[in-house]
Amino acid sequence: MEDTLCALRSLMASHSPPLDALVVPSEDYHQSEYVSARDMRRQFVSGFTGSAGLALVTKNEARLWTDGRYFLQAEQELSDQWKLMRIGEDPAVDTWMADNLPKEASIGVDPWCISIDTAQRWERAFAEKKQKLVQTTRNLVDEVWINRPPAEVNAVIVHPMKFAGRSVADKLKDLRKKLAQEQARGIIFTALDEVAWLYNIRGSDVAYCPVVHAFAIVTSNSAFIYVDKRKVSVEVQTQLMENEIEIREYKDVSSDVTLLATDELDAKATNETDKSVNGEHHRAQENSNDHIWVDPGSCCYALYAKLNPDMVLLQQSPLALSKALKNSVELDGLKKAHIRDGAAVVQYLVWLDKKMQDIYGASGYFLEKDSVKKEKHLQSLKLTEVTVSDQLEGFRASKEHFRGLSFPTISSVGPNAAIIHYSPKAETCAELDPDKIYLFDSGAQYLDGTTDITRTVHFGKPSAHEKACYTAVLKGHIALGNARFPNGTNGHALDILARIPLWKDGLDYRHGTGHGIGSYLNVHEGPHLISFRPRNVPLQSSMTVTDEPGYYEDGKFGIRLENVLIIEEANTKFNFGDKGYLSFEHITWAPYQVKLIDLNLLNPDEINWLNSYHSACRDILAPYMDEVENAWLKKATEPVGA
Amino acid sequence: MEDTLCALRSLMASHSPPLDALVVPSEDYHQSEYVSARDMRRQFVSGFTGSAGLALVTKNEARLWTDGRYFLQAEQELSDQWKLMRIGEDPAVDTWMADNLPKEASIGVDPWCISIDTAQRWERAFAEKKQKLVQTTRNLVDEVWINRPPAEVNAVIVHPMKFAGRSVADKLKDLRKKLAQEQARGIIFTALDEVAWLYNIRGSDVAYCPVVHAFAIVTSNSAFIYVDKRKVSVEVQTQLMENEIEIREYKDVSSDVTLLATDELDAKATNETDKSVNGEHHRAQENSNDHIWVDPGSCCYALYAKLNPDMVLLQQSPLALSKALKNSVELDGLKKAHIRDGAAVVQYLVWLDKKMQDIYGASGYFLEKDSVKKEKHLQSLKLTEVTVSDQLEGFRASKEHFRGLSFPTISSVGPNAAIIHYSPKAETCAELDPDKIYLFDSGAQYLDGTTDITRTVHFGKPSAHEKACYTAVLKGHIALGNARFPNGTNGHALDILARIPLWKDGLDYRHGTGHGIGSYLNVHEGPHLISFRPRNVPLQSSMTVTDEPGYYEDGKFGIRLENVLIIEEANTKFNFGDKGYLSFEHITWAPYQVKLIDLNLLNPDEINWLNSYHSACRDILAPYMDEVENAWLKKATEPVGA
Repeated sequence: MEDTLCALRSLMASHSPPLDALVVPSEDYHQSEYVSARDMRRQFVSGFTGSAGLALVTKNEARLWTDGRYFLQAEQELSDQWKLMRIGEDPAVDTWMADNLPKEASIGVDPWCISIDTAQRWERAFAEKKQKLVQTTRNLVDEVWINRPPAEVNAVIVHPMKFAGRSVADKLKDLRKKLAQEQARGIIFTALDEVAWLYNIRGSDVAYCPVVHAFAIVTSNSAFIYVDKRKVSVEVQTQLMENEIEIREYKDVSSDVTLLATDELDAKATNETDKSVNGEHHRAQENSNDHIWVDPGSCCYALYAKLNPDMVLLQQSPLALSKALKNSVELDGLKKAHIRDGAAVVQYLVWLDKKMQDIYGASGYFLEKDSVKKEKHLQSLKLTEVTVSDQLEGFRASKEHFRGLSFPTISSVGPNAAIIHYSPKAETCAELDPDKIYLFDSGAQYLDGTTDITRTVHFGKPSAHEKACYTAVLKGHIALGNARFPNGTNGHALDILARIPLWKDGLDYRHGTGHGIGSYLNVHEGPHLISFRPRNVPLQSSMTVTDEPGYYEDGKFGIRLENVLIIEEANTKFNFGDKGYLSFEHITWAPYQVKLIDLNLLNPDEINWLNSYHSACRDILAPYMDEVENAWLKKATEPVGA
Repeated sequence: MEDTLCALRSLMASHSPPLDALVVPSEDYHQSEYVSARDMRRQFVSGFTGSAGLALVTKNEARLWTDGRYFLQAEQELSDQWKLMRIGEDPAVDTWMADNLPKEASIGVDPWCISIDTAQRWERAFAEKKQKLVQTTRNLVDEVWINRPPAEVNAVIVHPMKFAGRSVADKLKDLRKKLAQEQARGIIFTALDEVAWLYNIRGSDVAYCPVVHAFAIVTSNSAFIYVDKRKVSVEVQTQLMENEIEIREYKDVSSDVTLLATDELDAKATNETDKSVNGEHHRAQENSNDHIWVDPGSCCYALYAKLNPDMVLLQQSPLALSKALKNSVELDGLKKAHIRDGAAVVQYLVWLDKKMQDIYGASGYFLEKDSVKKEKHLQSLKLTEVTVSDQLEGFRASKEHFRGLSFPTISSVGPNAAIIHYSPKAETCAELDPDKIYLFDSGAQYLDGTTDITRTVHFGKPSAHEKACYTAVLKGHIALGNARFPNGTNGHALDILARIPLWKDGLDYRHGTGHGIGSYLNVHEGPHLISFRPRNVPLQSSMTVTDEPGYYEDGKFGIRLENVLIIEEANTKFNFGDKGYLSFEHITWAPYQVKLIDLNLLNPDEINWLNSYHSACRDILAPYMDEVENAWLKKATEPVGA
């Protein structure tokens, strides 16, 4: 690591102009949250393995910014050379750079790895001290990264209509209507899930996300995909050609954006030669629609820099919302995938419950007793965070349409559960412990949908404090899930519902409460959010969103409960203001552990909801499990309260 | 009214430049919410008497914008010549003007009656069509207003330390510290309550608000008040002079702001002659602090226009927050005032209950029965919305420190209660009706505090629907009042708590949920709010705020429940994130009508809260009422539920 910093600083010094600092973001050329191994530049440089963070290397210092989910993990992973900067507590990166770097400093960044929004925000912050954001012409990290993994050549597959629910032709038609509405003659897509969604293709270039490293450009008359052609099978090629989508090499996006800027791209399109309208004619016709639409949050600064800023429409991509509004085939698929996934989770709990009793003398999932300390068990029987999560993956893998996990499983015992995005490593992870809370947050990719669920359990005797905290989290989870709200309400307004029961005791959690989830796509999907951070995207019927409050006590334990919800029209008695009201449908099925609930803290409405959810769990999962598993589930879901 | 529009249009035509439109805002020169009779220009022009609205007169049209509280009232009051524009449903006034007035139109406004914020927003909206906001050099409405009331000459009084709690010297010292922090050499105050608060004075220039028509300027060395000197008694003069505040005529603010702009004001200050530092010397010293601070939300465009925009610090007035954070003397006064006020409200209910039974054969406050139709009662006994509210004022007037009402009492029967800011007129108001809901929203000015309370009652047999709605409103009122939340939370985040129980049934209300309240000052006081509209002002300990959800069914009935709350540090079990948690203390005391509550819809926590609030009511108000009244209150506050 020390060598890396040395080597980087030497490149910074010899760069033209010499760089006072180099920013290394987490993101790849597509501003992805999860990136492929060869794009993990920030991890390579800093050693911090979390999914979100930003490294800054100056002549004398190295600092890493990350958010509340990762404070503990970053502390553990960063070497002495690095200083951890806590987002929300320490100055933001742009403020810090503006305040601490010298006047007229040159601050380098690979413009492919930074969004327009971010670059422009930094440039504003840098203005006062005449500091400069320098776009490096090559990626300095790549140059010092000796064993950088090679480019993937994974096959692209067609995502068929029976799962996608809408044809590429329909999606392109809708998109072109929106282009016309906004007077845009073209749009550039850089977000991998948007390219995959629009063209009904999937891939495996990035772990956990079934996407392809590709860009797309769509104009009123043409459509392009930029992808390593070696990955494109005949079947995929056929689907693309049927929709008049031209396949070009990945790197060609750069020159094609230049052509797009001068309105020469359509003329170059091979497809065009088949059409009666030639390029000249088309340009004359479309002159009034002169904007190029790019999403400032996802498009990289490198491509933006090729456009004339006056003709750019900087606005959220229209696909963000189109993709979030699931069609009926996708909703149906998501529900089915979540049922199979819930069955896998229950099978896992049944297996784990038995193992915890057999190996560790735990009182088990149901009984609230101290464990009976057994003779030291055989090393070969030992359960660790990693071995049990492998077992969980096994249960999922046995299910229809399984294609892999949707994110690295968080499987965490005791204090590790307080590390919000903990990712256990085989060599260092903890052993299961009947006297400690166990939290698992996991999900899978199925051809018909992506899943994400968190449950927190205890196989021994939880403390009264742990039960009180679990119950507060559960109350928030129920309050949010049961909310009804008028159209126009955004997730920021709803966020507080999940926190109020925790706030009552002076508790809270340092993460958002919910995110959208894809249809066999990214597990985190916008444009909406449920968060304490304002984001004015109204929730709409047929969106998916998670409901996942938590509570974390550093060095002790962590609790989180997460279901996926579908937003639907609510059948309210009245409809004040003719706005139409919305509500949530839970599609995740797995029991909450009654032993961890202090029933005295639940009100009758909450108890009724719990009982009815549990009853549905039992009925819905039954066909997917054997007799023993069903007996266990019946016990786990027995009605509680008066 | 027709003549007025004619006369105005003729002045618009002869104006230089000729005006295509004239804007007539509700506000006076101080951007006040409540204005004196001679400042009710918008009401004079349009006939609409609500407290908020904006009139626009064009060559051929007249339109009035107002918000959801006033839709029904405006419909009733506006003549055919006017078109009602509903804020939130119709285009905003700036958008409408930009879209509908001709290119390069001249749109006139008296720059004393419009804030900097508003003027700048409009100018941005007008830019595209090169429309111009023209500052009229005189107020055109005043010129056509034949019988405009004369200027008030009401005495200014000293607000003594035993009520104010902090000396003028302390307040000025704090203020000057803030000026130094912001590198400002002076600040202009135009908001009437800020001038009154800073200088510990009160007046009666505006009905319901104990303020004085005055401006203030404070610099690092000098302080000024601009006020009709005839109003200033020797006592007031003494207090001002002790604090080295120079008294100048109201109209002098204009020329003094010009002097302030060129840094010549301090030199002119009479006080300066007594000081060793002369003007020249001082200017040299203070050169680094070169800004003039004005609040863009409250300062008029006329004064701003006299300043060099480069040297203006456009930022919320520091007094907004200082005034909102009540000191212990003010908090003590507010609590005491609310107890006396609560006693008056209960006495009123006792009186009204008896009258409703005697005159109308109502079953009364406690019994849930149809009224026994009596022989037509004597006209002289008839109770109207106005006569009963006069009685309520009478009960208040008998209390110590009473100085008048804090806003026009909303006393409304049946459908009138659906008019959110209904203000009954003696000639046209409704008669009380034992078969209809009665809503009263009222408050008073006491020397030790300002009050504001709403209760909704029924003296006959409410429908199941009315009870369900009342209960939903009560649940929201309780949920908000019982919230605990970390420091940093704003009122926008909390707003949803009051709406969730209504949303459950598809119900809602078209107004905010809470506002700050003054200490013998304005009943509506910022800078915080509890509202569905985002406003990022965190709630802080020692602020006041109302908790007033409602539900309104046009043409049928209205329900609102309102208490004043004080924000205080919460005694939470934990303190996650070391943020410190806050909670609310209710300081309003009057029972909720149990007959209107569907107890089946309350959960045990809500029932416990209701019983404990009622029990406190009984104990706290007892010393202020006679035996009969206390017996009634005892019955009204008997514990409910299991």
